[in-house]
Amino acid sequence: MKLFDPLKIGAMTIQNRIMVPAMVTHLCKEDGIVTQDTIDRYVRYAAGGAGLIIVEAMAIHQVKSGPLLRISDDKYIQGLRELTHRVHATSDSKIVPQIIHFLKVARTGWRQTADMLSLEEIDQIVEQFGDAVLRAREAGFDGAELHSAHAYTLSSFLSRANPRTDEYGGQTLEGRLRLIGRVIENVRRKAGADFPLGVRINVEEFIKDGYTVVDSKLIAERLAELGVSYISLSAGGKFEDAVHTPGQVLYPYNGYSGDRCMPGDWLPRGLHASLAAEVKTHLLTKGHRVPIAAAGKLDAPQDAERLVAEGSVDIVGIARGLLADPDWPIKVKRGELDRIVQCDYCNVCKALDGTHRTVICALWPQGSIQAPKDDPSVQAPQWADAEKSLTAISKESRVELKWPKAPGATIYQVYRTSEPDGPQMIDAVKVTFWVDNAVLGGHKYRYFVRPCAATGTPGQRSNTTIVDVPAPAYLPPR
Amino acid sequence: MKLFDPLKIGAMTIQNRIMVPAMVTHLCKEDGIVTQDTIDRYVRYAAGGAGLIIVEAMAIHQVKSGPLLRISDDKYIQGLRELTHRVHATSDSKIVPQIIHFLKVARTGWRQTADMLSLEEIDQIVEQFGDAVLRAREAGFDGAELHSAHAYTLSSFLSRANPRTDEYGGQTLEGRLRLIGRVIENVRRKAGADFPLGVRINVEEFIKDGYTVVDSKLIAERLAELGVSYISLSAGGKFEDAVHTPGQVLYPYNGYSGDRCMPGDWLPRGLHASLAAEVKTHLLTKGHRVPIAAAGKLDAPQDAERLVAEGSVDIVGIARGLLADPDWPIKVKRGELDRIVQCDYCNVCKALDGTHRTVICALWPQGSIQAPKDDPSVQAPQWADAEKSLTAISKESRVELKWPKAPGATIYQVYRTSEPDGPQMIDAVKVTFWVDNAVLGGHKYRYFVRPCAATGTPGQRSNTTIVDVPAPAYLPPR
Repeated sequence: MKLFDPLKIGAMTIQNRIMVPAMVTHLCKEDGIVTQDTIDRYVRYAAGGAGLIIVEAMAIHQVKSGPLLRISDDKYIQGLRELTHRVHATSDSKIVPQIIHFLKVARTGWRQTADMLSLEEIDQIVEQFGDAVLRAREAGFDGAELHSAHAYTLSSFLSRANPRTDEYGGQTLEGRLRLIGRVIENVRRKAGADFPLGVRINVEEFIKDGYTVVDSKLIAERLAELGVSYISLSAGGKFEDAVHTPGQVLYPYNGYSGDRCMPGDWLPRGLHASLAAEVKTHLLTKGHRVPIAAAGKLDAPQDAERLVAEGSVDIVGIARGLLADPDWPIKVKRGELDRIVQCDYCNVCKALDGTHRTVICALWPQGSIQAPKDDPSVQAPQWADAEKSLTAISKESRVELKWPKAPGATIYQVYRTSEPDGPQMIDAVKVTFWVDNAVLGGHKYRYFVRPCAATGTPGQRSNTTIVDVPAPAYLPPR
Repeated sequence: MKLFDPLKIGAMTIQNRIMVPAMVTHLCKEDGIVTQDTIDRYVRYAAGGAGLIIVEAMAIHQVKSGPLLRISDDKYIQGLRELTHRVHATSDSKIVPQIIHFLKVARTGWRQTADMLSLEEIDQIVEQFGDAVLRAREAGFDGAELHSAHAYTLSSFLSRANPRTDEYGGQTLEGRLRLIGRVIENVRRKAGADFPLGVRINVEEFIKDGYTVVDSKLIAERLAELGVSYISLSAGGKFEDAVHTPGQVLYPYNGYSGDRCMPGDWLPRGLHASLAAEVKTHLLTKGHRVPIAAAGKLDAPQDAERLVAEGSVDIVGIARGLLADPDWPIKVKRGELDRIVQCDYCNVCKALDGTHRTVICALWPQGSIQAPKDDPSVQAPQWADAEKSLTAISKESRVELKWPKAPGATIYQVYRTSEPDGPQMIDAVKVTFWVDNAVLGGHKYRYFVRPCAATGTPGQRSNTTIVDVPAPAYLPPR
């Protein structure tokens, strides 16, 4: 598989094209120092074999912001060095921190915007980014990634909604590019041009008057001219359409742009892959071979392989899929696709992030704050009688499925077969029932359920049940 | 060109694949009766040769709503018959009205939502749609189109955000489909199953928690099962993200979903074509050959031809492009591409709609409420010295262009050449200057300007000017 071809990213070589994008964990405390839980989270990804692990955003400044990692002072280097050391001792995975500056938010819903920064504050941000990346180098990271996506400072300057009217302003593309350009120049000077430096940007903002791929192609071109080591493409996640919950600070992932950034189960697979491919094509046309990473529901192994094989992207970012199962890379490499604990895009992880709680996957065993260790010796869950395990009835335009507990199972994967796509996992649950609200009357649906151990060890699939959903009265007979 | 292959749509055959989608004109009065101006608008499209003309939405009910056509009573038939008669007397174009029901809105920002309708009111809507389509048949239309897209009643029921909890509710796909299903059944019974009936839906809603192509594939499948004659795909245009202007009723096209529905110049060409192609593929897989129309910045002739030729869609909807130049079809057919008055997506038409004023194109001659008649005898505009007409300077990360007036020109088309795409028209203006805010420093840009008569007769292009935009200080020398 092309997904397992190594890739040189500046001075660093990753062993495969699989990236864990930055995901908030809330595993540290308000002091922003790496904890044992933080280390355990990233060591787990390393054990699973991801080529590139991006550590959750760490702040270059000291503004209060809950349990968020910091790299704003030399005192943080020690903890970060322990993190990189432990990851490097585990596998060949490369580890890179995401470096962030964010503007202020208040519980009233107020937020600081790009136009409220003085030129002196901008100069300070430029210097702080350089200092932070130098600390990342000293802490043993393999590179650094600047967070210029979503709702944060660098992205707010890049935005088509940038309200400034000076030389950093939204009136011109060059004005919007000036801050990230100066930051990169400062980082290169302080941390060394040989230190791998990636930048994450939005391929589209997905907000009213926001930028689209028309601009992101040019933004990426400028980043390539600046010699960045890779460009990682995300989408949305903006304050502009965030819904304010009274008494809470704005959460930039609960509007439509948030739906695009962390797409739930009703959004299509690989929803931004074609936009990323457009950026890649544009760069190649302009003679730039900088690696491009994409993300957005790319956890189906065949999708990930296809994108890399056809050259649409160079690196596949899989956030929630690898949260659910950090062993996705080794399982895919070994062809053990049926042993993957597949993300069902329920977005419990997103809800935990939005309420500042420790981010876990709902598919992990109850009470765990880390993914269970893979253990091939775990016995496959077994139904007393697999062939009589699943029953289904059609009721009021729904299909209701139920099945008995299978000893040893913590997860039940629900599959629906609809020709010609073959069986698709449509949900993964810990209970023993499921309701399908998305059926068309007048059609037959086939379902089966597969019990899984927490480690992904699959049991025998249930019987396949066929449900004939009655046609609505208004539909003419076929 | 495949674009000019005829297509059978039920009992009607269109002479080419070019459709004028429904566009509000505000050319009638509050009484909702067809005026001479209304007739002139549609006769102009017929003269231009569009295969299928969809007349702006006409209401099946009597709720007050400004200058909007009505089909809610037999008294409207006479005016509509005059309209169809005049269009049919002009060319082979087929003419189909868009039939609409909408919920109430108030200047306070309040709006009626789907869950406020009683079952009796729903039954009445079902009957009103049937009565309206029968009237359309009696008025001599070639078919009818149900408006089940954007912010209106049928779409609000189809929506994933449908808040009802009864059998018309958003809990199940079948619940969301029930109203449109019943409407179609009623229309077929009252107006005849042989009367061509199209339905326009959103391919995606582009709002928080809204539906995506995952659902629109199934919605289209149901419409195909109901035997509709064509399915027209639009996008967005929802109340949910509309921005309320104090004292005005909500306008469902001024949020992000409105950006998607009537995309401005910063959104990419053909931005929903791949989603439409997904729906088409799904239907073919399920054995449904119902024609699919798509829309969204499809006015580049090569894009329109490619989509039809590759079978991605059957009909290409071009709204603003045909508003700018109703002769687009005959000019493309004759290969007179340089005579097209190209839409520049300035969205003055959208702003006029949003403020309830007569919708015109900003490229038409000052004061016109209709597109000028084509007249090949119009003299080409001429500069005194075309080779010395255009000057350009780079200033503060912008490029400023200016040129003298060319006698006979009403429009100046500004072209930028950036390898390898070839020259692209980047704007069309009536003034004699233009500023390019979207340049990258460190690059050379080439521009030329072409003067056009109001009818599209092009003058000689200006000299091509090359502008070297200085690189920003932070960019390393190449």
